Amino acid sequence: MSRKVHSSEVYQAVMNKLTERGVPLEAIADIVYEMQVPYKADLRKEVCMESVLAVLEKRELQHAILVGVELDTLAEKNILSEPLLSIVKADEGLFGCDETLALGSVFGYGSIALTTFGYLDKQKIGIIKSLDNEGGEHCHTFLDDIVCAIAAAAAGRLAHRIRDEDEEVDGS
Amino acid sequence: MSRKVHSSEVYQAVMNKLTERGVPLEAIADIVYEMQVPYKADLRKEVCMESVLAVLEKRELQHAILVGVELDTLAEKNILSEPLLSIVKADEGLFGCDETLALGSVFGYGSIALTTFGYLDKQKIGIIKSLDNEGGEHCHTFLDDIVCAIAAAAAGRLAHRIRDEDEEVDGS
Amino acid sequence: MSRKVHSSEVYQAVMNKLTERGVPLEAIADIVYEMQVPYKADLRKEVCMESVLAVLEKRELQHAILVGVELDTLAEKNILSEPLLSIVKADEGLFGCDETLALGSVFGYGSIALTTFGYLDKQKIGIIKSLDNEGGEHCHTFLDDIVCAIAAAAAGRLAHRIRDEDEEVDGS
Amino acid sequence: MSRKVHSSEVYQAVMNKLTERGVPLEAIADIVYEMQVPYKADLRKEVCMESVLAVLEKRELQHAILVGVELDTLAEKNILSEPLLSIVKADEGLFGCDETLALGSVFGYGSIALTTFGYLDKQKIGIIKSLDNEGGEHCHTFLDDIVCAIAAAAAGRLAHRIRDEDEEVDGS
Repeated sequence: MSRKVHSSEVYQAVMNKLTERGVPLEAIADIVYEMQVPYKADLRKEVCMESVLAVLEKRELQHAILVGVELDTLAEKNILSEPLLSIVKADEGLFGCDETLALGSVFGYGSIALTTFGYLDKQKIGIIKSLDNEGGEHCHTFLDDIVCAIAAAAAGRLAHRIRDEDEEVDGS
Repeated sequence: MSRKVHSSEVYQAVMNKLTERGVPLEAIADIVYEMQVPYKADLRKEVCMESVLAVLEKRELQHAILVGVELDTLAEKNILSEPLLSIVKADEGLFGCDETLALGSVFGYGSIALTTFGYLDKQKIGIIKSLDNEGGEHCHTFLDDIVCAIAAAAAGRLAHRIRDEDEEVDGS
Repeated sequence: MSRKVHSSEVYQAVMNKLTERGVPLEAIADIVYEMQVPYKADLRKEVCMESVLAVLEKRELQHAILVGVELDTLAEKNILSEPLLSIVKADEGLFGCDETLALGSVFGYGSIALTTFGYLDKQKIGIIKSLDNEGGEHCHTFLDDIVCAIAAAAAGRLAHRIRDEDEEVDGS
Repeated sequence: MSRKVHSSEVYQAVMNKLTERGVPLEAIADIVYEMQVPYKADLRKEVCMESVLAVLEKRELQHAILVGVELDTLAEKNILSEPLLSIVKADEGLFGCDETLALGSVFGYGSIALTTFGYLDKQKIGIIKSLDNEGGEHCHTFLDDIVCAIAAAAAGRLAHRIRDEDEEVDGS
């Protein structure tokens, strides 16, 4: 009865959802750049973008994006049942499910990704701030944490790569 | 624009949802009993039930229950968008969001709760098995992990309580 | 052959270790205050201290403190074997075990505690900064993350308490 | 003052420690096989071994192995301070730091790795059981969880790979 969904279909859906919800990948790469440039002065934006694209290939992050965007969208359309609808719309600090869902895909990139997530979730730099502030009919309760997760995962991945490259240059 | 939801309303909604979805608290207490009786031969069912009720007071577990049940229900009604709808209905092993959402509320009860969650998620004892097998129009992709989480949290809480009591008896 | 250690002995050892390693509980309460006062203008320091003391009652946090301080101390005495000794002494960003060990006890206080941990680990405010900067013969690789964990757990606990009190005042 | 340790030195140390502590990689591959063969009848042992070797390349898992083995060894030599020494030697269920340290490296392989870890930690199959039972002067408090983590990570990695291959065969 249930069909098996090919990962290429999931990937395409993820890209479409991010575009529809107003999150250009460049804005995520900008955050990765800002987080990692203190550790590597000659860091280039393309490398950050490459890292964003790489983490977006991961199944569990893709699924978290689909679930999070779905819940935000259903809240906007008032389709969620009460009291969940009011809780999601209020985006209150003690809700927790938004961070939990996003965090699952961050763990994979080491503890540096985890602390970066925590930092971004509190400081809300770049597009994360815009998403958080945008009110009106928009609901970004899950999306802002999702963006934190993508950026944190990409930053964590990058930190490990940079170290690997340093070691190769030093000669191994 | 968004109203503040009182925790008593959330608690009531959680209790209703569990009943509606066919999960009596007794069935969860039975799992807790089965998991903890090897460590305490004179364990009583009431103590297990008490522990189930205690973890259900926790905000983040309550929220995870509401979100998980909502997604299952929306999948049953074909309201989720594709490809998420097919992924949730298929309940495939690599989805991940169901375990991630449930796990968030388990961490709070120590690593014993975490390993119990992993064990229950694989072994699917008692009502977890029934939920997993029930096919047809029912979708329990999130609910079975939610029940694992409630039972694991209650078992972890109990393990710590039992140790506390042992120490008091020994004299402290 | 192995003796059962009473939790009062563990608690006392934890308090002694924190004092020996130069971490007054007041300094941790100060961090909790700084993190939570933006959400509650009339927050009092005593309430923060009370929350610090409450999380220090938790078994898994106590154990993490003992393990972390032990590893720092053994590194200072050059008793750890290589290459672990050099890795711990260097306190390099990609080590990971220091954050992992500390994080285990933070999960219990909700996702707000988790993001606070990530923030503190990056921003290093108050005594966390002093510990991180202190060089010479001192090794605080694990201790700074441990302090982040205690503060984050206490802040998370406090956030939930404050919400509970607000609801009681509103009338429930 | 602190030297930078090259990852090849860390890798070599990890391999030596596992051998010294009586954990042949084949025994870990056997556990991976047992966990994954129900999902793929024609699974070969070499593929399991390949997955074990792949996860052992990961920095954070390597560090966790070094830290865990160090603590076990120091406990055997009675070098840890009290009460930590007695707690580690007793390997009591509520210690928690052993699972926490090991878990950090499991998260990276998806929620399937996490539930596999929980299952292995409770069921203790193969060499995990031998390590757990071996008493006398041996202390394996951390090592058995470390082996659970390596096996769970390798099993999780394998599950994702198998799905990727299935999709390629189906034509993508």
